[in-house]
Amino acid sequence: MDQRIAALEVGYDVPAAVGMDISEIQTPALIVDLDAFERNCARMKEAIERMGVRLRPHAKTHKSADIARYQIEHGGGCGVCCQKVSEAEALARAGIRDILVSNEVRDPLKIERLARHARIIVCADDATGVEALSAAAVRHGVTIEVLVEIECGARRCGVAAGAPAVDLARRVAAAQNLIFSGLQAYQGAAQHIADAAERGAAIGIAIEQTRQTVRLLGVAGLDCAIIGGAGTGSFEIEGNSGVYNELQCGSYIFMDADYGRIRDAGGGVVGGFENALFVLTAVMSKPEPDRAVCDAGLKALAVDSGLPVIFDRPGVRYAAANDEHGKIEDPDNLLAINDRLKLVPGHCDPTCNLYDWYVGVRGGKVETLWPVTARGKLY
Amino acid sequence: MDQRIAALEVGYDVPAAVGMDISEIQTPALIVDLDAFERNCARMKEAIERMGVRLRPHAKTHKSADIARYQIEHGGGCGVCCQKVSEAEALARAGIRDILVSNEVRDPLKIERLARHARIIVCADDATGVEALSAAAVRHGVTIEVLVEIECGARRCGVAAGAPAVDLARRVAAAQNLIFSGLQAYQGAAQHIADAAERGAAIGIAIEQTRQTVRLLGVAGLDCAIIGGAGTGSFEIEGNSGVYNELQCGSYIFMDADYGRIRDAGGGVVGGFENALFVLTAVMSKPEPDRAVCDAGLKALAVDSGLPVIFDRPGVRYAAANDEHGKIEDPDNLLAINDRLKLVPGHCDPTCNLYDWYVGVRGGKVETLWPVTARGKLY
Repeated sequence: MDQRIAALEVGYDVPAAVGMDISEIQTPALIVDLDAFERNCARMKEAIERMGVRLRPHAKTHKSADIARYQIEHGGGCGVCCQKVSEAEALARAGIRDILVSNEVRDPLKIERLARHARIIVCADDATGVEALSAAAVRHGVTIEVLVEIECGARRCGVAAGAPAVDLARRVAAAQNLIFSGLQAYQGAAQHIADAAERGAAIGIAIEQTRQTVRLLGVAGLDCAIIGGAGTGSFEIEGNSGVYNELQCGSYIFMDADYGRIRDAGGGVVGGFENALFVLTAVMSKPEPDRAVCDAGLKALAVDSGLPVIFDRPGVRYAAANDEHGKIEDPDNLLAINDRLKLVPGHCDPTCNLYDWYVGVRGGKVETLWPVTARGKLY
Repeated sequence: MDQRIAALEVGYDVPAAVGMDISEIQTPALIVDLDAFERNCARMKEAIERMGVRLRPHAKTHKSADIARYQIEHGGGCGVCCQKVSEAEALARAGIRDILVSNEVRDPLKIERLARHARIIVCADDATGVEALSAAAVRHGVTIEVLVEIECGARRCGVAAGAPAVDLARRVAAAQNLIFSGLQAYQGAAQHIADAAERGAAIGIAIEQTRQTVRLLGVAGLDCAIIGGAGTGSFEIEGNSGVYNELQCGSYIFMDADYGRIRDAGGGVVGGFENALFVLTAVMSKPEPDRAVCDAGLKALAVDSGLPVIFDRPGVRYAAANDEHGKIEDPDNLLAINDRLKLVPGHCDPTCNLYDWYVGVRGGKVETLWPVTARGKLY
């Protein structure tokens, strides 16, 4: 046992050591079922090859250089998306190339930071943003590739589709040291619509707006190298649209309780993906026969999309999250102190952002530890 | 400007450099208004001196060795509370002494880790937990101080008050290499009851259960060096009870939107504490006159207790949090790109746990950076 603690103390902030039994991992810990993760990557690779589109997986889900590398080397990825400059910086430092910052960057210092990295693509949604990017690119003697982000139903960022988007694309194309590389057209609000028909209708509107904009850009002589968007909830619709050529799915590698409720047209889980990500937790108090307390609460789980679901353990329910504890209903008194439970988080992206390490497990043993390279890189 | 980026790149993961203007901090960032923080600490120090009790501030709120040191050296703290072994390890390594782990520790490896640190106090709520602590203490040749945690209304961990607690205390006192140090009696569920009378009633029940248990322990010849509990929402009730001698408040240093709704008997904000913690965010898209998008979303803010409130900027409202964006209603078109907003987070503890750095500001300038020493230390 002392040897195992010594192994933990090598880094002094790791929750597990390679070779440990899953029952010895220090909880709460973020664990990846490596078999399920690899199967999810293979499923997506097969899907994009079938649909004839590129995949640029979104690294905002996992923030891990190891996972990004796996997606590029084995999962059909042509590069990755990031959402923040600091996230892109962290992955670039770890050797990841071809990064699209699928977001606007407006702060002057952030634009300077961006311009110091060659081969980063970024989005713009208004003329002053284009001017600022151009000025920074000129100052640093680099070329920045720019996607025009269009509003296509999520009512978040984005210039209006159609003529306003074409006008902005013209400005990009005319600006010094910028290249117009295409469109960012992500309908994020539609990803989590559980019903397939409703979700399809929302994505259909986005596709039509994108198609129309691409047509007008063509008339103006502006080609789109990238027409990007789509998420795990909708990727087969965009992928089969004949409009999009690059999909930006993130959650498919892990899934979560919320995506588990998103149905495809046949009533199955969308894409056939399976749960590969869990928060491993342990029972640390059993004050009464019908309830237990585990060690994973609000700091271990993002609850914005609902409470976690206990995996593969019928008869017990995660009922409430406190800061450091989870309250578990155990009506049949099935649980004992130190029992391990695998929790499927409500929402994978912000849950991953809580941890410094992925603990990769296979066959009940710890096989690898992957740092969450860009954890907390929000700026 | 390049000099400032160079300053950022020293650590390559800091969102600000000392001396920067607040407008240059890379957002989102967690900022501390140092004047307000110091006034909150002074208010609490005055209150505990007036009530004649000790303060053992809860470090689960801030997870920072710098703040813990300030609380001990200037804020009347006799030590700190932690909630997890890894949190205690991180603060102990940074030089903080006298740490109470105000929680049960049951995993065998965690108990080993705990026993390797002298002068850590821990809680127990059943007999097998006491046996495990004793065995580890004997094995390492150390003495572990133990508080018996009693259930006093939160229905989380804790043995029943009264005779069952006395029975467990007897076991602690009889166990090899353990010292019975008193009671842990924290009514966490009552802290966030907004109405002062209702909150007082709930805390009153906890106080009576604690008083009764202390009396029975006295009859059994067992003295309580520590009778600990209370939080920012209720500390004046426990502090004036004549029962509790050590208060474990955490949030008072920072406050948050949820505690801002907790009223004292006179209708004021509880304890007279003021907001000292903010998530600084910037407007990064202004797609329409009546709405704006900022760069702080679900990874920058814990939303379990509600959305953040925009501080000191009337006419605009934080309306929805996406993973990486906040949607802001701006009906009068007051906001422009790169405007900075100070967000009061809904819940301070899990928000602090999202960041690697506190950016301490005074007079509009960055005065200091404090690492969030025990960030992510959940295990």
